[in-house]
Amino acid sequence: MSKVLTSGHPVSVADVPQWDIVTDVAIIGFGAAGSCAAIEARNAGSSVDIFEVASAPGGSASWSGGEVYVGGSGGTTIQRKHGFEDSTEDLQRYLMMSGGPAADQDRVTLYANNASAHFDWLGAQGVPFKGTYLPGKWIEPTTDDTLIWSGNEKAWPFSAQAKPAPRGHTVEFTGWGGGKLFMEKLCDQALQVGATAHYDARALCLITDHDGAVQGVVVRIAGQPVYVQARQGVILCAGGFIGNRDMVKRYAPEALKCEQLVTGGNDDGSGIRMGISVGATTLNMHEFFATLPFFPPASLVKGIFVNERGQRFINEDSYHGRVAHYVLRQPNGRAWLLVDNDIFARPVIQPNITIAAVGETWEEIEEELQLEPGSLVATVNEFNRHAAEGQDPYLHKSDEWLRPLLSPPFAALSYCSGDFDGHAFTLGGLATLPTGEVLNADGQAIQGLYAAGRTACGLPRWGEGYSSGMSLGDSTFFGRQAGLSVAANIARD
Amino acid sequence: MSKVLTSGHPVSVADVPQWDIVTDVAIIGFGAAGSCAAIEARNAGSSVDIFEVASAPGGSASWSGGEVYVGGSGGTTIQRKHGFEDSTEDLQRYLMMSGGPAADQDRVTLYANNASAHFDWLGAQGVPFKGTYLPGKWIEPTTDDTLIWSGNEKAWPFSAQAKPAPRGHTVEFTGWGGGKLFMEKLCDQALQVGATAHYDARALCLITDHDGAVQGVVVRIAGQPVYVQARQGVILCAGGFIGNRDMVKRYAPEALKCEQLVTGGNDDGSGIRMGISVGATTLNMHEFFATLPFFPPASLVKGIFVNERGQRFINEDSYHGRVAHYVLRQPNGRAWLLVDNDIFARPVIQPNITIAAVGETWEEIEEELQLEPGSLVATVNEFNRHAAEGQDPYLHKSDEWLRPLLSPPFAALSYCSGDFDGHAFTLGGLATLPTGEVLNADGQAIQGLYAAGRTACGLPRWGEGYSSGMSLGDSTFFGRQAGLSVAANIARD
Repeated sequence: MSKVLTSGHPVSVADVPQWDIVTDVAIIGFGAAGSCAAIEARNAGSSVDIFEVASAPGGSASWSGGEVYVGGSGGTTIQRKHGFEDSTEDLQRYLMMSGGPAADQDRVTLYANNASAHFDWLGAQGVPFKGTYLPGKWIEPTTDDTLIWSGNEKAWPFSAQAKPAPRGHTVEFTGWGGGKLFMEKLCDQALQVGATAHYDARALCLITDHDGAVQGVVVRIAGQPVYVQARQGVILCAGGFIGNRDMVKRYAPEALKCEQLVTGGNDDGSGIRMGISVGATTLNMHEFFATLPFFPPASLVKGIFVNERGQRFINEDSYHGRVAHYVLRQPNGRAWLLVDNDIFARPVIQPNITIAAVGETWEEIEEELQLEPGSLVATVNEFNRHAAEGQDPYLHKSDEWLRPLLSPPFAALSYCSGDFDGHAFTLGGLATLPTGEVLNADGQAIQGLYAAGRTACGLPRWGEGYSSGMSLGDSTFFGRQAGLSVAANIARD
Repeated sequence: MSKVLTSGHPVSVADVPQWDIVTDVAIIGFGAAGSCAAIEARNAGSSVDIFEVASAPGGSASWSGGEVYVGGSGGTTIQRKHGFEDSTEDLQRYLMMSGGPAADQDRVTLYANNASAHFDWLGAQGVPFKGTYLPGKWIEPTTDDTLIWSGNEKAWPFSAQAKPAPRGHTVEFTGWGGGKLFMEKLCDQALQVGATAHYDARALCLITDHDGAVQGVVVRIAGQPVYVQARQGVILCAGGFIGNRDMVKRYAPEALKCEQLVTGGNDDGSGIRMGISVGATTLNMHEFFATLPFFPPASLVKGIFVNERGQRFINEDSYHGRVAHYVLRQPNGRAWLLVDNDIFARPVIQPNITIAAVGETWEEIEEELQLEPGSLVATVNEFNRHAAEGQDPYLHKSDEWLRPLLSPPFAALSYCSGDFDGHAFTLGGLATLPTGEVLNADGQAIQGLYAAGRTACGLPRWGEGYSSGMSLGDSTFFGRQAGLSVAANIARD
């Protein structure tokens, strides 16, 4: 083999010098999707080898808040315990809206029908949930509570179409980053049931036969190519591509506006690239999760965002990631959060935010921002007049966060390009069926190839509609589906 | 061969029963890109076979206005004749802005440097240009004039960054649809220089060798698969995918808002799908050209668009396709064009447009539209106050189209979802180098495969930045580059 092995091009099975490892199921990536795929495939009786590029398991999910977005079936045990009924239909409607114009009805339906049971399954694998409810508006709880409002449920237009319920279910962990504990439990379980994990193992390229079916994968371990035969199939669970700046520039250039990459470090797009190399098609490659964490404290949600024309453009009680996408697309990348003295605070996550203007009157704020005379003042007055009556006819901000901005001094916090720390990860990936089967451009399954987690275009596929817990909920649930699907294949010789 | 031949999956050269046709260059699609690729490859000495799914040549370009977007190098002969200087740097800056966040610097540079010479080349192939200048604002001239303002050149923010020049160069043809004549000349020339055209010939799938290089293509002619060996390479010039509703739904669902498909009928995405099948990556698949032809008459450009919040959102003198994208994304798909009696007219292209409100005062219009009291009135008053002073500080509408709306009766023309005829075609496609070489996910060229026209993601790749003539300019110019590149390959046995 003199050819360079790269993700962009598969190796022919005829060129494989020998099978160094023979297994039923080869899983690329030992994160949320990979661990759950391994558990299911192993429990179904398959031998499972996991190849992880890092030196330890967990993937990017280890760096998350350890929260899954689940509900439906009348409510999870935790939702019901705290008096929240949550029908499957409401969850389904919410998920369809969240998926945006390219929402996948089949995927949404399967998830909505089974999300509550999936939560129980996670518990059965050893992921601890305390069972308590934390009211309020949080980006991620730092307490060890379970149930939180984690998305757009109570915000217009979502609230108008699906009955709201809190659906963020968070691992029992105090402090930031419960994902570490969450993933320790799942990875431990995968090893417990007998999956074999290989660390510092980089997948180089897929191996295909004469008919284009995927027969295995070449992995680099200790500097040497290792030829892995996967008798039932290969599952790509290698994360997204936010860490691969060339790919971001090519496929999702708007995400370059966010400099903080939400990744454990290995979201280099290699899983997606390997899929493309064997004829897979991709979906929504331009979409990404973004956030500008303008709260906590929650009082800041009572402020109003305006653009350089002095116009409002979003109900500020929307999920912070939705607000972020609206902020990012304002003319010339300029927007400010207007607050009065009663609600003023520095955002906890970015306390050094630029305060672009302070003044005793809104006229002063407008002048300091060098906006057209009257533009910002008219908007604030119109907002205040309606808010005093408990109304927001333009943007439908909910009562809970609606109050006039009347107490000087007033201030404008800058969310102009360059003044914020935006956080992002990618939502585009390989087209798959809910079973995890990877699809070619004709919508046909590529034999022997599966994908889940951010390597696939999953449940969360629209930045404007994302809710916290959707990526981890999707990765664990559809990782399981891929594991079950591949284990059902007849093992090839 | 018992397997079904589909675009999603290549055939192995080992499975080819016999070569029915042996040629140097196989071109899929006899439209703008295909004809120009054929001329260049043939002139370079290659044998060329073109496979066209329709019964006649011309492709979707036959249904266009027959206009190319060219300039630079100080000006084309026609620009200079009418006193318009046009530097390569200004054209380049304009094209980079037009390409949006994913603009391709290499492609733009090559085009800007050579666009003026390309115009001369088109003339040398027999495409007639009268050489006259038609002032004013047109969607497509119905006169036989040549030079028109066809994009956003004089509109903010483009005008602020690149010195404006008219760059639409239109074939000498009276009436709608000069593309027919334009394509007749190019296709005649391709046949004249010795390319062989096969009609009613549907490309089924590519043929690849053991290393993944493209060796040919299987074409269905008279119901039979015909195996074509392409000794120098295959060029995919099979158009975009606006006619394939499944693909539009999957990749560019927002384009479903436009019911009028800009296509000669065969933009079914087969070229893109064949590229994907051999490991090509795609770019900007969600992007599309759209227009709501709200003018002519040009007087309507003096109106102002507002959304359901009563806000303005675009300088209405922008290119109609840019206006369309802004209209399509307004909250709840609702927007109206406000006009006064002096400028009122029914749009020529959609005379049956819904007139949603008529009144003697703007208060009446606001009430008829059931907008929040004061919202529309405040916007119109603010616009009028500034317009009377020759200013539009919010949206920078240019002087030429700026006047207050003061003469009753007033009216609101509906551009709400369902009330307009939107026209669309797709802008996403295969990733290629400017040479036409098709790229895999690692950015490496796939041996033997080229693409141009709407099968590739080309110069026009952002709906908001499109200008008339860009697609035909791109298709003809980069068709030529692909023809030249493939002809430079050493012919394989």
